[in-house]
Amino acid sequence: MKIAERKLKELGLELPAPAESGANYVPFARVDDLLFLGGVVSTLGKGLRYRGRVGEEVTIEEAYQVARLCALKHLSVVRQALGDLDKVKRIVRVVGYVNSAPWFAEQGRVIDGESDLLVQVYGELGRHVRCALGVSQLPFNAPVETELLVHI
Amino acid sequence: MKIAERKLKELGLELPAPAESGANYVPFARVDDLLFLGGVVSTLGKGLRYRGRVGEEVTIEEAYQVARLCALKHLSVVRQALGDLDKVKRIVRVVGYVNSAPWFAEQGRVIDGESDLLVQVYGELGRHVRCALGVSQLPFNAPVETELLVHI
Amino acid sequence: MKIAERKLKELGLELPAPAESGANYVPFARVDDLLFLGGVVSTLGKGLRYRGRVGEEVTIEEAYQVARLCALKHLSVVRQALGDLDKVKRIVRVVGYVNSAPWFAEQGRVIDGESDLLVQVYGELGRHVRCALGVSQLPFNAPVETELLVHI
Repeated sequence: MKIAERKLKELGLELPAPAESGANYVPFARVDDLLFLGGVVSTLGKGLRYRGRVGEEVTIEEAYQVARLCALKHLSVVRQALGDLDKVKRIVRVVGYVNSAPWFAEQGRVIDGESDLLVQVYGELGRHVRCALGVSQLPFNAPVETELLVHI
Repeated sequence: MKIAERKLKELGLELPAPAESGANYVPFARVDDLLFLGGVVSTLGKGLRYRGRVGEEVTIEEAYQVARLCALKHLSVVRQALGDLDKVKRIVRVVGYVNSAPWFAEQGRVIDGESDLLVQVYGELGRHVRCALGVSQLPFNAPVETELLVHI
Repeated sequence: MKIAERKLKELGLELPAPAESGANYVPFARVDDLLFLGGVVSTLGKGLRYRGRVGEEVTIEEAYQVARLCALKHLSVVRQALGDLDKVKRIVRVVGYVNSAPWFAEQGRVIDGESDLLVQVYGELGRHVRCALGVSQLPFNAPVETELLVHI
């Protein structure tokens, strides 16, 4: 059936190569039927390189695209962990951290980039609980970092 | 028996209507005996509207009340998810994000607003692990956002 | 066998006394085979007291040591919860919050302090998923706060 894999193709999306870990952490950890994925950052969007705070160096639309790319990175890890995307029972939880200008308060609209993609690929099974937060800095000066929990 | 529901009544507390989701996320997600609740923000406290950073626009006492209201919002989602509050086996984890002035370092005293209410309603079963954090901004410029995990 | 307990001894490390909770929260909560540990902060490193933002009052090397001490605090809670460190099946997830100067973007190198220690003690079983985040403030003006999830 491979619904999610087919959906991804229909959307014309390709998953990036899974990130390699540079330290004593790993991209995923499975406990029973829970698959924990580590935080991913992205500084890229549509071939451009974005760094810095949303509301200052990065616009909300750019940051949405970066969050969407974080979702693709996460799906790449899911495929690496499970073999294919259709072993997912449900997307459970997204936490999204937005590198925010002091006055910027629309973190939700940024993290929609990840939420929307997950629902495009998984439909109802992609709907999840979520936290959207504004932080003052992220690794590599990335505009967005997101974390994912999946039920398999 | 309905201990928690009765306790809520004794405290004279009413739960707000469950929030509706405006995007591709949902207020709760159940996996086996874990109930994940999404982040809730509140900008209200005792009929007043609070926005901004604790230590600047919002006092610590006001923020405590806002965190308490976040707990009521979470309980409202618990009731929506499970039918009644007494299906809870245990409150597991609270993460509390406090929109903080740069010098404000008493995030714990703010998040006590949620912790205290959960223990008032659930007694020993309401005691949980916790993170209290200071962030530079939250959605809607809310002073507090909290996330909850429940064992059912 | 007590591999982790022996490893700790070989490293010449002693665990601090488990922290006492001053409010309505607790240091750990077990659900089935998951052990959730609450956020720990540390303001100490090698006998010195550190407070403030990494990149300003605290150097990256000092913050690494503080994160390492957070790991020791977590292990102390693990031993308190389970009797000994070798009841751990696997370290699942670390979230590390770094009290960061506005321009500081090497949160990963700080949280390596906890990641590295967990792998020193547990080897492959110590490798975990991770989020490293920059926040604008932490309780007690601590430079680092970390949270831990363990599979038992």
